[in-house]
Amino acid sequence: MKHFFIFIFSLVALSCWSQNISEAFNLMPWPKNITQNNQPFILNEAFTVSLDGPDSERLKSTSVNFLRRLSGRTGIFLKAGFPVSAKQNKTAALKISYNDIASLNINTIEAYILEVSPDQISIKAQTDIGALRGLETVLQLIDFNESTYFIPGVSITDEPRFVWRGLMIDVSRHFHPVHVIKRNLDAMAAVKMNVFHWHLVDDQGFRIQSKVYPQLTKLASDGLFYTQEQIRDVVNYASNLGIRVIPEIDVPGHASAILTAFPNLGSKSGYEYSVERNSGVFDPTLDPTNDDTYVFLEKLFTEIVTLFPDDYFHIGGDENEGRHWDENKDIQKFKKEHNLKTNHDLQTYFNIKVEKILNKLGKKLVGWDEILTPNMPTTAVIHSWRGENEGLPKGGTLIEAAKKGYNTILSNGFYIDRMESIEKHYLTEPIGNVSLTEAERSRILGGEATMWSELTTPLTIDSRIWPRTIAIAERLWSDKSVNDVASMLKRIASVSFRLEELGITHIKNRDVILRNMSNNQDISSLITLQQICEPLKIYARNKDGIEYQTYSPFTLFADACVVDALDAVHFNALVRMQQTKPSQENQAKIKNYLEKWSKNHEQFLKLTPSPILTELTPLSKNLSEASSILLEKLNQNKISSASQEQLDKNLKVLKQDHVDVEVAIIQALETLAH
Amino acid sequence: MKHFFIFIFSLVALSCWSQNISEAFNLMPWPKNITQNNQPFILNEAFTVSLDGPDSERLKSTSVNFLRRLSGRTGIFLKAGFPVSAKQNKTAALKISYNDIASLNINTIEAYILEVSPDQISIKAQTDIGALRGLETVLQLIDFNESTYFIPGVSITDEPRFVWRGLMIDVSRHFHPVHVIKRNLDAMAAVKMNVFHWHLVDDQGFRIQSKVYPQLTKLASDGLFYTQEQIRDVVNYASNLGIRVIPEIDVPGHASAILTAFPNLGSKSGYEYSVERNSGVFDPTLDPTNDDTYVFLEKLFTEIVTLFPDDYFHIGGDENEGRHWDENKDIQKFKKEHNLKTNHDLQTYFNIKVEKILNKLGKKLVGWDEILTPNMPTTAVIHSWRGENEGLPKGGTLIEAAKKGYNTILSNGFYIDRMESIEKHYLTEPIGNVSLTEAERSRILGGEATMWSELTTPLTIDSRIWPRTIAIAERLWSDKSVNDVASMLKRIASVSFRLEELGITHIKNRDVILRNMSNNQDISSLITLQQICEPLKIYARNKDGIEYQTYSPFTLFADACVVDALDAVHFNALVRMQQTKPSQENQAKIKNYLEKWSKNHEQFLKLTPSPILTELTPLSKNLSEASSILLEKLNQNKISSASQEQLDKNLKVLKQDHVDVEVAIIQALETLAH
Repeated sequence: MKHFFIFIFSLVALSCWSQNISEAFNLMPWPKNITQNNQPFILNEAFTVSLDGPDSERLKSTSVNFLRRLSGRTGIFLKAGFPVSAKQNKTAALKISYNDIASLNINTIEAYILEVSPDQISIKAQTDIGALRGLETVLQLIDFNESTYFIPGVSITDEPRFVWRGLMIDVSRHFHPVHVIKRNLDAMAAVKMNVFHWHLVDDQGFRIQSKVYPQLTKLASDGLFYTQEQIRDVVNYASNLGIRVIPEIDVPGHASAILTAFPNLGSKSGYEYSVERNSGVFDPTLDPTNDDTYVFLEKLFTEIVTLFPDDYFHIGGDENEGRHWDENKDIQKFKKEHNLKTNHDLQTYFNIKVEKILNKLGKKLVGWDEILTPNMPTTAVIHSWRGENEGLPKGGTLIEAAKKGYNTILSNGFYIDRMESIEKHYLTEPIGNVSLTEAERSRILGGEATMWSELTTPLTIDSRIWPRTIAIAERLWSDKSVNDVASMLKRIASVSFRLEELGITHIKNRDVILRNMSNNQDISSLITLQQICEPLKIYARNKDGIEYQTYSPFTLFADACVVDALDAVHFNALVRMQQTKPSQENQAKIKNYLEKWSKNHEQFLKLTPSPILTELTPLSKNLSEASSILLEKLNQNKISSASQEQLDKNLKVLKQDHVDVEVAIIQALETLAH
Repeated sequence: MKHFFIFIFSLVALSCWSQNISEAFNLMPWPKNITQNNQPFILNEAFTVSLDGPDSERLKSTSVNFLRRLSGRTGIFLKAGFPVSAKQNKTAALKISYNDIASLNINTIEAYILEVSPDQISIKAQTDIGALRGLETVLQLIDFNESTYFIPGVSITDEPRFVWRGLMIDVSRHFHPVHVIKRNLDAMAAVKMNVFHWHLVDDQGFRIQSKVYPQLTKLASDGLFYTQEQIRDVVNYASNLGIRVIPEIDVPGHASAILTAFPNLGSKSGYEYSVERNSGVFDPTLDPTNDDTYVFLEKLFTEIVTLFPDDYFHIGGDENEGRHWDENKDIQKFKKEHNLKTNHDLQTYFNIKVEKILNKLGKKLVGWDEILTPNMPTTAVIHSWRGENEGLPKGGTLIEAAKKGYNTILSNGFYIDRMESIEKHYLTEPIGNVSLTEAERSRILGGEATMWSELTTPLTIDSRIWPRTIAIAERLWSDKSVNDVASMLKRIASVSFRLEELGITHIKNRDVILRNMSNNQDISSLITLQQICEPLKIYARNKDGIEYQTYSPFTLFADACVVDALDAVHFNALVRMQQTKPSQENQAKIKNYLEKWSKNHEQFLKLTPSPILTELTPLSKNLSEASSILLEKLNQNKISSASQEQLDKNLKVLKQDHVDVEVAIIQALETLAH
């Protein structure tokens, strides 16, 4: 009992401290409604889960995983390792009640009600999917004090704002084996995402087994592809997590892999098609004037749709510049004969034929927003990706598509491979203040984070997806008003860390790369550098797509670095704050950082040098020198002109790209310097 | 050229320093013959690999992986990402020549010759398997200086001492998915092991899909099993690494899972068979007097052998105490009728029938050494596992089996799940000074490390297998005379670290567990404790097999700890040395450790406490107090009697088990204390 009193005390303390409920809980995405009652449920070894509803494979497997995660996180030796039916156990610690086994589609009900009282935790939902979502909320609520783990007393009613909350993973540029996909599906479910868009085919590889056309993987995958059994396994795994799986076979462009196997379907006769090893936009394109193209696609799609129960099928349709069409006289002739003025018209002709194939197979076509052309039927779904960077107005094509009658999803602003800050993605509001009719609004289904994989391998992909995708998950689930960046940053730190229990490697693989670089020496000086450096952004890392081949090393310093570098974010905030609202305390913290950096080069020099370490020397040296001078300046309020000159030199070097990273504190250092 | 001179200089320096060649290279297993020529091959982006021999899938895939590992480790952007045939490239940097595609069996030739000169690296081998082994040696040779990566000039001729160098993984007690198996196969190949023994069936789960008897996995796997396609995939993956795969279906004991699906084959009628959640030796046993048992086994084995091309098939046969046989009157009657005096005789009756089934299927029977009974035909292979702990003479049954005419393999001494030191496994010499005829010697095929998985999950299994299994790999490959522990410890540090590039998680998952325990706080104080604590040994952790269920948490402090705890090994050696050959320098190092530990509790107390951290408090507190007093003692050459009393109290606490670990420096602390 002694422990219990300590516990009550700390809870009271907690509730006094917490003015704002979002301070008290690290929930993400933030629920629709939450109230607190300060009546926690204490976790102990007697904890049980009961299921009250029709037999649900997904809820059974998720409850087992729930129990493992609860036990793994707390170290509690649960007596009951498996859920039971509500008939067997009427007084279960966690009672889950639901009415239906959901079909996974854009109408699936994902709402749930969660009530925590000292006697019981209850989750009520219309569907088993809603119940899954509630279980993830319970796991995010787990809290502790010195003597007890507990679930704080809350009442939550929750449902998503958008029905389509997706993550696309490109497995063509770099292949990502089944276990990499599965751990990312687990992470998606942990933040209530529900669409996995599987970019299976591109210039760099055909990654799905076709038994009808085995040449595709034999000639164009380097042996790296999913068997049909693996695809079924992943689809079933995703379904158990309440995640739909949408395949993408990118056509008619991005076709180097397909045409490596079937050059006769290409637009340029005699062209030597081969699997692409570089990044970029390439010319190989299916010939839309060749009937064989449609025979091939129909047979292929007929086979592939059997693996994916989802209503939707993504055909890509992006970035076809039509060069090979222009170079082919027969295609030019065909365009004239069919009154197709532009290559866009020709591609629309192609898209319409492909859509008919898909419709016959019971599938709805999704395509990147290049398919949004005047003649495209509104039955297609427009995947809005282009924006200001591609010469379109801000916000891209999402609203336009919805107004024109298309269902549509947003990826512009959610391109996580661009290595931009979490804040930018978080504040990408799909609708904003645009006024829409109810019908128009309902056509905006949601959005997708897109993980293009030119520069990622299984070693690094998790750190490119997470934690930023958590912010996107909240944007798509939570109310538009949930947009406080400081609150998001506080909550995401906890939720991001917890992905590690699902096998996500975004934290642990940093040290793997740094150990590899240093040949297993002390990596602390490298960590200090890593925490202020970020990979080059917006495709600057792989200039023109030819610095890196698909088989280049992705074990470099830049691969150990992540967006929103930890110390950089803190330091930059301190310097900003010091500009507007100076304090002794902040100043001391700034000096602490400068001291750490000024000493770091000495530590770095203790490493036995190797070529890959030597490349970091200018970065390490100039950072230390600049920090020492700035420290002197802050301490003495002035520095000599020689020191200022040296500082300027240092900063000039730090401003340059180093080994494919940028120094993310450079602006703050310049602020302090001038 | 400037760099080149530096490089030559450092090489000369190296060769002067290196009196002993085993100091110069971190090769493991150590090769049969090696000479040095100080003429290194410099690695650069022009590096290429050529293959000169018949088309070998395994050599192609391994060379591609070789190039990726070379590039990943050095950061060199290789221009050629794939090997070519020797006809295409006559001047390849690394030329691999071989004559045959090997069949994988106990006669496979694994010898190779490796020559490194400034112009070329060449690997010559009779078979493609020999070439694979040589490639791993090249990767272990990679060295660097400030400006260059290089392969030191050496000539190596190499071949194994034993033909059977295995690792057994138990996937029944805890299931280990395909990717866990694959990464461990990669690691095995990296240290030239060649047999993966897959313990697929035991009381705790039936882990292989049977299409003939789907009930087996439906009722007795919790959904955790390998499909036949996955089995084929793993077998093919292993074959590409030159690793044979031997399945084990443990019968007639360890049969809870089988009998959960087929209770009618059990020895005790009316018994409620269920998948076992605890560890230990259980009573459920197949009924050897029931003809249906053999019908079942023949159908099952007929199906399973199609998945495993290897000549051998392991039937377990261990730890059947025959209690259910004793309790069954019909079985007692059967024994009398067939003149089977003991349960061992009855089991031999069973084994002989099973062997006939296997022989009909073209397979040779392997069984744990309980099958070594007077009537057992010598066509069976005896897997020697019992030893002094099981009441047998030292060395167990290996020599006895060989002398009696059986082929035999050794696991006694290689039980890595017992959590004993690397040194113990390393010094387990299979033959020793026993005098054997040539025929007897040839029957000793080799040995296997055994990874029983009662206390491991995918999170921790790698740290239980590695690095200790590297020492076993050397014991089985290298000459008997290669047994210097200090040399082994020096080399294994490097080879163990490099397993991380293959995805082995033995290093990185420590921090995952400590972060989980601390809820992502600063784990440095926990690391300090981890580096002197080792998991309880020889099954003391899971007393009587009932503390832990299969679904218990394996995310505890003990799971973060490993055998041969880093600081403990160093500190113990220092204290030992100080006893025999005292020096100021050693004394200073000892004091450094004591200082670190004495300050650690203060750091530990900064962590926000939780129940799982609070359990560590006695350990942390007593270690700090003891270290402070010992430090005082070393500094002043005496301490007060009150301090001595306090110290004794501290040491008494540290001697107890704490949270399933033992303090691995306790003896050294006591030495210092008295």
